[in-house]
Amino acid sequence: MVNETQHTCSASSSSRSDGGSSSGSESSKENSRCSTPVLDADRHERLREKMRRRQDAGDKWFSLEFFPPRTANAAVNLISRFDRMGAGGPLFIDVTWHPAGDPGSDKETSSMIIANTAVNYCGLETILHMTCCNQTKDDITGHLQKAKRLGLKNIMALRGDPAGEEWEEEVDGFNYAVDLVKHIRNEFDDYFDICVAGYPKGHPEAESYEADLRHLKEKVFAGADFIITQLFFRPETFLKFMKDCQAIGITCPIIPGIFPIQGYHSLRQLVKLSKLEVPQEIKDVIEPIKDNDAAIRNYGVELAVSMCRELLDSGMVHGLHFYTLNREVATTEVLKRLGIWKEDPRRPLPWAVSAHPKRRVEDVRPIFWASRPKSYIYRTQEWDDFPNGRWGNSSSPAFGELKDYYLFYLKSKSPREELLKMWGEELTGEESVFEVFTCYITGEPNRNGYKVTCMPWNDDPLATETNLLKDQLEKVNRRGILTINSQPNINGKPSTDPIVGWGPSGGYVFQKAYLEFFTSSEIVTALLKVLKKYELRVNYHIVNVKGQNITNAPDLQPNAVTWGIFPGREIIQPTVVDPVSFLSWKDEAFALWIEQWAKLYEEESPSRMIIQYIHDNYYLVNLVDNDFPLENCLWQVVEDTFELLN
Amino acid sequence: MVNETQHTCSASSSSRSDGGSSSGSESSKENSRCSTPVLDADRHERLREKMRRRQDAGDKWFSLEFFPPRTANAAVNLISRFDRMGAGGPLFIDVTWHPAGDPGSDKETSSMIIANTAVNYCGLETILHMTCCNQTKDDITGHLQKAKRLGLKNIMALRGDPAGEEWEEEVDGFNYAVDLVKHIRNEFDDYFDICVAGYPKGHPEAESYEADLRHLKEKVFAGADFIITQLFFRPETFLKFMKDCQAIGITCPIIPGIFPIQGYHSLRQLVKLSKLEVPQEIKDVIEPIKDNDAAIRNYGVELAVSMCRELLDSGMVHGLHFYTLNREVATTEVLKRLGIWKEDPRRPLPWAVSAHPKRRVEDVRPIFWASRPKSYIYRTQEWDDFPNGRWGNSSSPAFGELKDYYLFYLKSKSPREELLKMWGEELTGEESVFEVFTCYITGEPNRNGYKVTCMPWNDDPLATETNLLKDQLEKVNRRGILTINSQPNINGKPSTDPIVGWGPSGGYVFQKAYLEFFTSSEIVTALLKVLKKYELRVNYHIVNVKGQNITNAPDLQPNAVTWGIFPGREIIQPTVVDPVSFLSWKDEAFALWIEQWAKLYEEESPSRMIIQYIHDNYYLVNLVDNDFPLENCLWQVVEDTFELLN
Repeated sequence: MVNETQHTCSASSSSRSDGGSSSGSESSKENSRCSTPVLDADRHERLREKMRRRQDAGDKWFSLEFFPPRTANAAVNLISRFDRMGAGGPLFIDVTWHPAGDPGSDKETSSMIIANTAVNYCGLETILHMTCCNQTKDDITGHLQKAKRLGLKNIMALRGDPAGEEWEEEVDGFNYAVDLVKHIRNEFDDYFDICVAGYPKGHPEAESYEADLRHLKEKVFAGADFIITQLFFRPETFLKFMKDCQAIGITCPIIPGIFPIQGYHSLRQLVKLSKLEVPQEIKDVIEPIKDNDAAIRNYGVELAVSMCRELLDSGMVHGLHFYTLNREVATTEVLKRLGIWKEDPRRPLPWAVSAHPKRRVEDVRPIFWASRPKSYIYRTQEWDDFPNGRWGNSSSPAFGELKDYYLFYLKSKSPREELLKMWGEELTGEESVFEVFTCYITGEPNRNGYKVTCMPWNDDPLATETNLLKDQLEKVNRRGILTINSQPNINGKPSTDPIVGWGPSGGYVFQKAYLEFFTSSEIVTALLKVLKKYELRVNYHIVNVKGQNITNAPDLQPNAVTWGIFPGREIIQPTVVDPVSFLSWKDEAFALWIEQWAKLYEEESPSRMIIQYIHDNYYLVNLVDNDFPLENCLWQVVEDTFELLN
Repeated sequence: MVNETQHTCSASSSSRSDGGSSSGSESSKENSRCSTPVLDADRHERLREKMRRRQDAGDKWFSLEFFPPRTANAAVNLISRFDRMGAGGPLFIDVTWHPAGDPGSDKETSSMIIANTAVNYCGLETILHMTCCNQTKDDITGHLQKAKRLGLKNIMALRGDPAGEEWEEEVDGFNYAVDLVKHIRNEFDDYFDICVAGYPKGHPEAESYEADLRHLKEKVFAGADFIITQLFFRPETFLKFMKDCQAIGITCPIIPGIFPIQGYHSLRQLVKLSKLEVPQEIKDVIEPIKDNDAAIRNYGVELAVSMCRELLDSGMVHGLHFYTLNREVATTEVLKRLGIWKEDPRRPLPWAVSAHPKRRVEDVRPIFWASRPKSYIYRTQEWDDFPNGRWGNSSSPAFGELKDYYLFYLKSKSPREELLKMWGEELTGEESVFEVFTCYITGEPNRNGYKVTCMPWNDDPLATETNLLKDQLEKVNRRGILTINSQPNINGKPSTDPIVGWGPSGGYVFQKAYLEFFTSSEIVTALLKVLKKYELRVNYHIVNVKGQNITNAPDLQPNAVTWGIFPGREIIQPTVVDPVSFLSWKDEAFALWIEQWAKLYEEESPSRMIIQYIHDNYYLVNLVDNDFPLENCLWQVVEDTFELLN
């Protein structure tokens, strides 16, 4: 009977060894020390494996196509769109490639950099388009190498539009997408997942529909992993195409490209580019309402929903690819109506993970960057290795300098005028700064009637979890304890808790209470006296902009402040208070006063001098209450401090 | 004000980096990934640093001297004495060196192997004596290299007694201890801590007391770290010697050697060897009672206590070194009466740590060897690296084969006759085996009136912690669930808890309930059906001697079953249920049936065939209840299984 059960493994069976190269002897235990927690299968699978797994599980999925923006401001907006649309759970996004726009450059609007941002900073599985026509082998290899270096793992291999009217095949050149597919497989082996384009009506330049199908088969047999189709207007177009593909032996996934009509002009332009014809029944609806954008969009949504339903119901389609035109509303609505937009409040880890392959094993970070994960990823992008399981005594954590506060993916989403409304056109003293902090916490409008929805240290409104501490936070901010980061203590809540949960289900999560704030040296002096009473229970780090640092951390060891216990796994401790990293964070936290706030005002202006004074004289303090099963004592510490001052 | 506080560190200050060599680039984070938890300063300091720290803290300490035993059985006894006397908290023990006894060999009675056992298997800081007279440089270097390889870190450098009557200095040879000290420093730099001998009355062969002091100074200036003295009978002898040493510039620690008189003959022999004279006042007491061992020992204890008190009260003495003559009672009593015998129930980790330097960072082990830590250390002795922080997915944990069940430090303390009395001269069926297991759990005598104080898998009576589960264990053992390892679930008890606590104070310890047992295939069949109801909550591994293995462990990942949360530190998770190691443990656990039990009986005898049957047909099962905050469900699992069988 025993031999019949499904979970059988032999004595010699071994699990995956992701631990990287080991130079030790055979008896070395090294392999076992750097392996992965496999917390989230998504972090370890390639795109084609994810696709396969979703298909096998009968899950329907979607993906989203974007084009690179024209301006830096548009890039900022696109990145927040990635974050918002990423919340719906796309299997991947893709970024198009326009040879005229210097797509492989380091410009903040290049395809390469937008894709890099999506992978590294938004944690999205991303496909970078790449065209090969009219390009040298060296150029292409260079782009691919750069993509690999940036952590991109998927390429959509395209021919691209030939430049000029009279295009001729180059001997040994890149004439067709299939040449690019072959080149990628030759030069990069199996590193990239490769996607190619399919044309449900046949490529406009192909001799015939059948000839185009044969070209597609060539691309697949040269090494492409899956196909995304050009847009089409009738479900039967796609279903016929899919059957025809299968009939000639194409077995890889074929993903229909869906174009929700969003406006009269964008439709016309797309149709012109793709040389498709809009069916008469659609024209008949659209022409009469062509100046009514809302009506056209509603119709487009209807049409897309009904087409997608038909595709999914056919049983042949598992995923849908959306041409978003960088817009949110229509696609999101289609997805929600189809029921495949899935906002999953569960997080694999309590912070936003990056999708760079070298960060697959990363599962520990200092808590300081909790509200600035993109900055953390930026400052650690050069690391070869990421902490797994334990942070360790980092003698030199080697954080990159943060001088580029204006990098588009680190920049505030709000323009200067809005920030001034929130933070004050004119400051009259330290108290007016206290007021800004207090309004941010309470969510109430400031004296000029504006809500404070972001701060230099946090570009988003208060997190739900921090909301748990709102009343206490309000009280202390009013009195000059200017909080920028905090978490309540948690003594074993289910890992599925909608507010503080993370990780696989069936587990328990824990936290030590944490409070981080700027405050005056007067308050620090009193605080230090009070902290003597809390010795051992409360760990503290207190530092000013010059780096004078007061701490009771034993041996500069990190203190784990968030951890989780899961069925059948080792302990995960994703956030720590690390004394050494705190000094790198301190530089950034103090600089944000100047870079984000003081610089809103004229040089020498009183407002600017107030912020400068705080920057020069305040301390940055963090406190951890080690006794997580007891009531958080940090509020009492602050209370005692104020009492001592009175 | 802030600058006055004591805990100040600059931004560039860095903590110790124990992480070993790093070959990464400057920006690599590698350093931070392999560092030590510094859970227990004792594991990281050298002996001379520990001595200094204890002295600075005003702590009094003691150390114990042993000589290598003559026979293998005596070695077994000596090792249990190490364990028992180690519990009193000696700063170190030392093992003497007798050139005639082949002290550097691999014999189980050699000084080298006894010291190796003390360090590696008993976790004791150990000094190995070494003499140099009449030995070649190569011999000595060979001994030192071997000592280093075995993890010994301290050498007592001695001349030793010249062989033969007519001893002459060899040119460039090792004529005096100082030559050995110089040699060690030349060849091994600062690796070893070196101790040398001091003679409070002057060395018997020295020209004069003053000349001997000068020799001692030479030894210290050649690189010795501290001095242990020859025995003496009056405190003033030592105090004068110490002052004289200080007067000529000897500033290192000088530790008085204390000899509690334990019998008439041993005293006479020692005095003869050391060429000391017993003071008349002592002779006057001893001669009349020379045939009354107990009376002499009582007197010896009195004398030693009063001398030690005087030494400690002088304020010049911080530690006392005891010549135990391999006996326990007298020394232990002196230490207890002095109040420096300190049985500290607190453990740095829940299992017995080894003192080998390469195991300093070790803080994770599989739970299976909980009752056989020496076997675990033996089977992992060839590892270059030990798990720190996380066990990891061990694709090849490379445990050494355990064929040497008769290695003296792995052997049962009880002789064959005693084992037969406990486990049965004659077995009549599987039920009589159930009975042995049950008697071991309950502590009640077996049917022949003998208590079962050990089992093949556990050479000691039931642990206090396991006692918490006694009633349930009794019930299941009676019915053929033959338990060999278990722990209750713990949801956050203080780390100072006398039964389940471990690690620094101020922390909280946790456990998942664990149960490991042998049982018949009939019970396993029912159990597997029951376990379906507990899927996700209970992880199981079920294996027979042939390696057929049934498990629901995800991806063969380890499951942390003991962990601790401490102030200002990362999480420590010292025990895991590792699916891969379980298969190595399985070999050992099954072999113990045969090696320790079956072989007590004649070949082909019914008793032997019963054990052989169990060995061949039973399964080894382990169960973990992942829901540690809830009531342990494993008893219910077993209950359900029996119900299903009925």
